[in-house]
Amino acid sequence: MPTVDAYNVEGRFEEEDYLKAVREFGASLIGKKLAKKIGHPLVPSLFFAHRDFDEIIKNRFAIVSGRGPSMRMHLGHLLVFRFVKFLQDKFDAFVFIPFSDDEKLLAKEHLNYEQVRQMDYENLLDIIAIGFDPEKTEVMMDLVNIKQDVYNLAIRVAKKITASTVRSAFGFTPDQNIGLQFYPAMQIAHILYPTAKYGLRTVVPIGMDQDVFVKLARDVAPRVGLAKPGDILSKFIPGLTGGKMSSSKPETAIYTTDSPQEIKVKLMNAFTGGQATVKEQREKGGNPDICPIFFYHKFLFDNESIGEKCRAGELICGNCKKDLLSRIVKMLEDHQKKREKARDLVDRFVKM
Amino acid sequence: MPTVDAYNVEGRFEEEDYLKAVREFGASLIGKKLAKKIGHPLVPSLFFAHRDFDEIIKNRFAIVSGRGPSMRMHLGHLLVFRFVKFLQDKFDAFVFIPFSDDEKLLAKEHLNYEQVRQMDYENLLDIIAIGFDPEKTEVMMDLVNIKQDVYNLAIRVAKKITASTVRSAFGFTPDQNIGLQFYPAMQIAHILYPTAKYGLRTVVPIGMDQDVFVKLARDVAPRVGLAKPGDILSKFIPGLTGGKMSSSKPETAIYTTDSPQEIKVKLMNAFTGGQATVKEQREKGGNPDICPIFFYHKFLFDNESIGEKCRAGELICGNCKKDLLSRIVKMLEDHQKKREKARDLVDRFVKM
Repeated sequence: MPTVDAYNVEGRFEEEDYLKAVREFGASLIGKKLAKKIGHPLVPSLFFAHRDFDEIIKNRFAIVSGRGPSMRMHLGHLLVFRFVKFLQDKFDAFVFIPFSDDEKLLAKEHLNYEQVRQMDYENLLDIIAIGFDPEKTEVMMDLVNIKQDVYNLAIRVAKKITASTVRSAFGFTPDQNIGLQFYPAMQIAHILYPTAKYGLRTVVPIGMDQDVFVKLARDVAPRVGLAKPGDILSKFIPGLTGGKMSSSKPETAIYTTDSPQEIKVKLMNAFTGGQATVKEQREKGGNPDICPIFFYHKFLFDNESIGEKCRAGELICGNCKKDLLSRIVKMLEDHQKKREKARDLVDRFVKM
Repeated sequence: MPTVDAYNVEGRFEEEDYLKAVREFGASLIGKKLAKKIGHPLVPSLFFAHRDFDEIIKNRFAIVSGRGPSMRMHLGHLLVFRFVKFLQDKFDAFVFIPFSDDEKLLAKEHLNYEQVRQMDYENLLDIIAIGFDPEKTEVMMDLVNIKQDVYNLAIRVAKKITASTVRSAFGFTPDQNIGLQFYPAMQIAHILYPTAKYGLRTVVPIGMDQDVFVKLARDVAPRVGLAKPGDILSKFIPGLTGGKMSSSKPETAIYTTDSPQEIKVKLMNAFTGGQATVKEQREKGGNPDICPIFFYHKFLFDNESIGEKCRAGELICGNCKKDLLSRIVKMLEDHQKKREKARDLVDRFVKM
């Protein structure tokens, strides 16, 4: 079986692995009733499980959706932030977007301060381009505009977490730096900030590998007098090369700033669920379940119907990729225009 | 031999113990030349050793003198901050006064946030009363007005310090909270802030038990591209009961806000270097070297000459205490007036 923790994901997750992981985590699958209430096409296909969101959604709530600015953002990030924007619009949710630039600086030996600050800015452009309402959104970069309330909350949280606890939860070792070992307190403070500041319960849309932060936040919250945060767990977004999509492996992901030519090269080289030859594809059909190209068709463009055509051998990979290419290029052209306009809006979110 | 580390001081330090500790620490005694340049009556009698201050004093420098606001301030604190103010006036030094209210909250199980914030305010009044020049002084309370520059410096510093290092330097154990284990990075950031922000080398007047922070700061400074801080080491200020003066043991210290009656009770009950009876005192004389009453006469009021009278049996403890009482009452009357006026000046230092 594949394994998962906050710093490593090994193996490919199949549907049954997700179900098993959810049971082990003590989370719940998103059922029909909750899915209907949320009313988003990616629920429950991509965002498939949750903790307490069925309760949290009953009142006005906050969404905490962070960003670790070590690299440019890719389509997977876009997809999550678009989901957050959907929830903001539909449920009048307050959105808090903390940038863990401090954690990136602490965790990545090769990254320096200037590089992280540059990524803060680049990533913020992508986020603004998504169209968050500045009246209902706060962006905080730990290294740029840390809020006193968040620091104080981190200290209150840190008082409740021992070094042993983070060591067993995250596998830290004594030769790692003290900043990394403190950082879980800061991340939990990010998660609990809207609850402490505005009295809103928080939900965190999060990949399963980051669930441990929410679990720890749920342990600590009542001990600092706050309501437990919930989460919405997403499946892993497959990388173009077959494994997990990763910002740090350019060939696995399409960045929001990639040119049409770059996207073309990545897609044409991408792993697929198709057969080795066109002839075989026509005869046996492909396997969309393991195909990142299908994943994008389905989750980015609501184009699930091609899955059947693929299985039936009616689609060949080259054409399927070309179709996806033109869709992504069009979508990113639009995003990139908004991203350019976002340069003038930065000050409304963060004084950088 | 007595022992000393950042969280414990055991035993009484005699002159030879100080000399030995300085050798072991790798610090230098303050010699005649440097003492003359500093030109303060407590150098080198109380402030007796240093690291690099002979170099640092050659240019404009910064003094970092922190405050851990867990209790009211006592005469020992007053004495150190007065020394800092003297250096500010004489050498045009920039003074940075960080309040480690976060560390106090993390380290003291019984203290809550409101109590620490109250002490932030009370202690600040004492510090303002000393007369620091607001144009050349910055006060920062980690839980009130943390500076982004300081937080960022703490992250850069934390990246260079492993959990093993703080464990061996401070004796931390895995069952202690992660805030405490991170705090050394914050304290080092306090120490290095004037160097990072204004390019001034820093000197830290500090009790020997806190020297380990400066040592660690000196190790880390060049690794974050900054000049090493120096320090001025002070001897321990004896408590009225014979051991170390401690804010948390009211009977050992005279607080800046004590009433004449409270001071009288504490002094009359104080340990002395005198003999058991007046008759013996007349015959054998007393031992001012171990006497806290003599210490205050000498260091607070420059009244060293009574030492000889004591040894000669010319002074009896009751009278010596009464003399000290009237001096302290007069001094604190003046301080307390300034402390009341300081309420109107708080905003010039910290927006609370």
